[in-house]
Amino acid sequence: MSTDSLTEAIEELPLVDHHVHGALRGDVDRAGLELMLTESDRPIPPWMTQFDSQVGFAVRRWCAPVLGLDPHASPEAYLARRGELGTAEVTRRLLTASGIDHYLLETGYKGEEILGIDGMARASGRRVDEVIRLEAVLEDVARGGVAAADLPERFRETLARRTADAVGLKSIVAYRFGFDFDPERPTDAEVAAAAGQWLAQCEKTGEVRVTDPVLLRFGLWSGVDRGLPIQLHAGYGDPDVELHRCDPLLLTRFIKSVRPHGVDLLLLHCYPFQRNAGYLAQVFPHVYFDVGLGVNYTGMRSDAVVAESLELAPFAKILFSSDAWGPPELHHLGALLWRRGMLRTLAPWVESGEWAVDDAIRVARMIGRDNARRVYGLADGA
Amino acid sequence: MSTDSLTEAIEELPLVDHHVHGALRGDVDRAGLELMLTESDRPIPPWMTQFDSQVGFAVRRWCAPVLGLDPHASPEAYLARRGELGTAEVTRRLLTASGIDHYLLETGYKGEEILGIDGMARASGRRVDEVIRLEAVLEDVARGGVAAADLPERFRETLARRTADAVGLKSIVAYRFGFDFDPERPTDAEVAAAAGQWLAQCEKTGEVRVTDPVLLRFGLWSGVDRGLPIQLHAGYGDPDVELHRCDPLLLTRFIKSVRPHGVDLLLLHCYPFQRNAGYLAQVFPHVYFDVGLGVNYTGMRSDAVVAESLELAPFAKILFSSDAWGPPELHHLGALLWRRGMLRTLAPWVESGEWAVDDAIRVARMIGRDNARRVYGLADGA
Amino acid sequence: MSTDSLTEAIEELPLVDHHVHGALRGDVDRAGLELMLTESDRPIPPWMTQFDSQVGFAVRRWCAPVLGLDPHASPEAYLARRGELGTAEVTRRLLTASGIDHYLLETGYKGEEILGIDGMARASGRRVDEVIRLEAVLEDVARGGVAAADLPERFRETLARRTADAVGLKSIVAYRFGFDFDPERPTDAEVAAAAGQWLAQCEKTGEVRVTDPVLLRFGLWSGVDRGLPIQLHAGYGDPDVELHRCDPLLLTRFIKSVRPHGVDLLLLHCYPFQRNAGYLAQVFPHVYFDVGLGVNYTGMRSDAVVAESLELAPFAKILFSSDAWGPPELHHLGALLWRRGMLRTLAPWVESGEWAVDDAIRVARMIGRDNARRVYGLADGA
Repeated sequence: MSTDSLTEAIEELPLVDHHVHGALRGDVDRAGLELMLTESDRPIPPWMTQFDSQVGFAVRRWCAPVLGLDPHASPEAYLARRGELGTAEVTRRLLTASGIDHYLLETGYKGEEILGIDGMARASGRRVDEVIRLEAVLEDVARGGVAAADLPERFRETLARRTADAVGLKSIVAYRFGFDFDPERPTDAEVAAAAGQWLAQCEKTGEVRVTDPVLLRFGLWSGVDRGLPIQLHAGYGDPDVELHRCDPLLLTRFIKSVRPHGVDLLLLHCYPFQRNAGYLAQVFPHVYFDVGLGVNYTGMRSDAVVAESLELAPFAKILFSSDAWGPPELHHLGALLWRRGMLRTLAPWVESGEWAVDDAIRVARMIGRDNARRVYGLADGA
Repeated sequence: MSTDSLTEAIEELPLVDHHVHGALRGDVDRAGLELMLTESDRPIPPWMTQFDSQVGFAVRRWCAPVLGLDPHASPEAYLARRGELGTAEVTRRLLTASGIDHYLLETGYKGEEILGIDGMARASGRRVDEVIRLEAVLEDVARGGVAAADLPERFRETLARRTADAVGLKSIVAYRFGFDFDPERPTDAEVAAAAGQWLAQCEKTGEVRVTDPVLLRFGLWSGVDRGLPIQLHAGYGDPDVELHRCDPLLLTRFIKSVRPHGVDLLLLHCYPFQRNAGYLAQVFPHVYFDVGLGVNYTGMRSDAVVAESLELAPFAKILFSSDAWGPPELHHLGALLWRRGMLRTLAPWVESGEWAVDDAIRVARMIGRDNARRVYGLADGA
Repeated sequence: MSTDSLTEAIEELPLVDHHVHGALRGDVDRAGLELMLTESDRPIPPWMTQFDSQVGFAVRRWCAPVLGLDPHASPEAYLARRGELGTAEVTRRLLTASGIDHYLLETGYKGEEILGIDGMARASGRRVDEVIRLEAVLEDVARGGVAAADLPERFRETLARRTADAVGLKSIVAYRFGFDFDPERPTDAEVAAAAGQWLAQCEKTGEVRVTDPVLLRFGLWSGVDRGLPIQLHAGYGDPDVELHRCDPLLLTRFIKSVRPHGVDLLLLHCYPFQRNAGYLAQVFPHVYFDVGLGVNYTGMRSDAVVAESLELAPFAKILFSSDAWGPPELHHLGALLWRRGMLRTLAPWVESGEWAVDDAIRVARMIGRDNARRVYGLADGA
């Protein structure tokens, strides 16, 4: 069975990247770029380079040609060419070549360093919608000055205003506490009490960063009330994470509690717990997942990660994301490696006659585009 | 090295399905069938079909030809043909074509909807033996009326009677509590106290369902005393499960406690913890495992699951099961996908000269038939 | 793209085995050998043979030819030939053929049964350096007689003396307690109190075996103070392990606490948690890992384990080890299967043009040799 039509369908599929951040605004030197090609937040030690990693090799192999270099260009040549072309041109080339057609942009992390909604729309020439990070809104409310007793209501008002045009919400409770939280909705009195301690702490330290589990749960449940799809960071991330506490299975009770509210939950990344996420997506109608981030950082091995995402979950419950933040190399590779992984997984199934080619094409389109359109209520077309 | 003899040996191997349930008694419509092609217990949402999943595609690819349709028949055509042939003929065809020669049938779940021992023997024309679910016996004792103080002894008597002709026992402690239970044997006084609360609860609610960990442990230890091999559901299952509490590693202390009693423990399914199960099967002589259920629901990806089952465990410690319940499609696919996964895993090892073909054939026969015969003391032959 | 140069580079790479134990001193019969080809500590049951396992098949396939037999020799023929050649010749042949050039030998487990530093150097004709097991030193201090109050200082002195020529330390806290220990450094007063109980216990039982978490943490923190790289057993091992408590992710807080002290941590084996280890190695500059032990025991499937080790971790953070103990078959297979797994993983990446062949060769050399040289400060060359 020929897989030419499958190859073509996957290559040409206009993707909806349902969880992504902005491309870098400014220029970056080699040390800076290397630090953005890892989830580590520590300086790269002098005896190594982050280019000697799966994602580093992938940049040299796949991004170098987009900048007009040979595949496997050296890091030195790559950085030099990047400087020559300039940030705007590098960004334009890599975003355009990615074939991502629609970005759902989450702007709550270091927003000053990266392009916002309008910037990404200009740089990519594509449609961009917004996803709002619950914890960022909560921290903005604290920064704006609020009495503890007023915080619950003030947060709800602010969230309503901020999300007026948003297509989804995002929570990083995994980073800030872990998924082993009490799944019950806290009362406003409990929230006000926790807010009192937190606001005093903010005052004292000058740092506004929410880690209290009562406040985090309040954010989540307010998100449920808001009624938009909620994205939850799960699994792999930076060293703030205690990874074993980010296994999405630990969310089981919360997932059950949310079910009657009719709100969809989208588990992001999930690596190395993608099989666990697939289980949740099979048994709970309102649970979805993707394997973004992990795809970029596993490079050549991302085909294994993509393949593992195609086990228990019905195909209507799997989405594509790049989770790129910063270097547009990550936006580009997120799309490229996902397409490559899907093709490497599906083509042999079609060749052996075990999947029909039309079914394979349909599944690729569901995961790469159509499921996101349905979940987020995105209008079809441009 | 030619693998023709390996292919033939695997294709023709008469399997012992060491953990399986009955095929459906009655007719089923599309909505009903879809709900039995998932471990979810929630209605399939209108915007999706369970046919768009690995197991759905496998039904269309592999079961359609057994019913006289082309591979990849549409769900509509498949359902129509199923109706045309009638349940009895569909069941007969799919069971016969599976090549399963001997069923160890566990009848403790929704027994009224599925064929029992005699029904399966008639429908398949093959030998059927029984496996008794401990929790079902305990619930029957409660339903029959018993004083709390008498429950321990009454349960032991009933279990002895019910298992007179059984070849094994089964526990669903994973579903009802999780594997993180106290591994110690409870005293009869503790059991009577827990039974008092439970029976009062049953009286009050009219529902008889055991979830108390003391009673569940009592069931398990009574099973150990009974001396038959004990099957334990592990890993993947319906949403009653909290999957992270069903990792078989959590059983380590219980496994050690059971060792001196000379009773074998068989970990069922185990997905996605099959590697953990393989570890337990290596280090504890009385521990076995299979990857049933997960094989059906991962479809084309079941070759990866089967391959992962062939890592740490000695080959004498791995078994075949389908864990089919209901649609005979699941019995058929359980056997077919296991044979396919074994062949895809072993054939390249033989082709590269790294395994001898006779060894590969012997391993397939151990896992598909001989280990079960030895563990359950099944007489060889018809 | 030709992979001949990659094949050659991997085949001929002189390996540094950064975590390994001595080869057996004496002769061994079949029962004895089988018991050393498993991590189980229970006698092999009469109805099975450990030769029917991945490692057993690998011995017959790969070690038989080194002893002058055909591949896939029967266990009987293999044992007979082993006896004919004699232990010294078998050891010499298997070690020499492994291509391991430098052994970092950990001698703390059943040292009387296996070759020590000098014995291994003589048998292999290669360089051997020593790694000291912290718990063994602590137990020696107890055996030597010490007052509880003096134990902290006595241990530090003894450790300094014993490690004068060592290149690294090793901890088996995973076996003796689990990784879910309090990461804080205990005070000398806490240690003395725990030592009082432990020494009394040793006196009473005649057995000297440290399992107290305060003493184990004291050992670890003393190791940090000593300033040598610390190896930590993680994941798979014998039945003393409760495997779910040996997930290296549970070390996250300890890893963070060690960071400011500038000491490298090397996670050993890690199976089946190799992806978790890869995450830690990416985000923490002082964390490294290997997949030894698991490679031997998964045999043909070790290519999957090696491949999974090449995901998140930068290539400067992955090492080779065999973790062989006893039969020199394990030293031989550890090297052979790692080379085979690397070649099977990397060759297709080069063939598809996605990795440059020079990069692939460089990565193999980093993992197989150069990273260990850098971490342990080993002088290059002979």
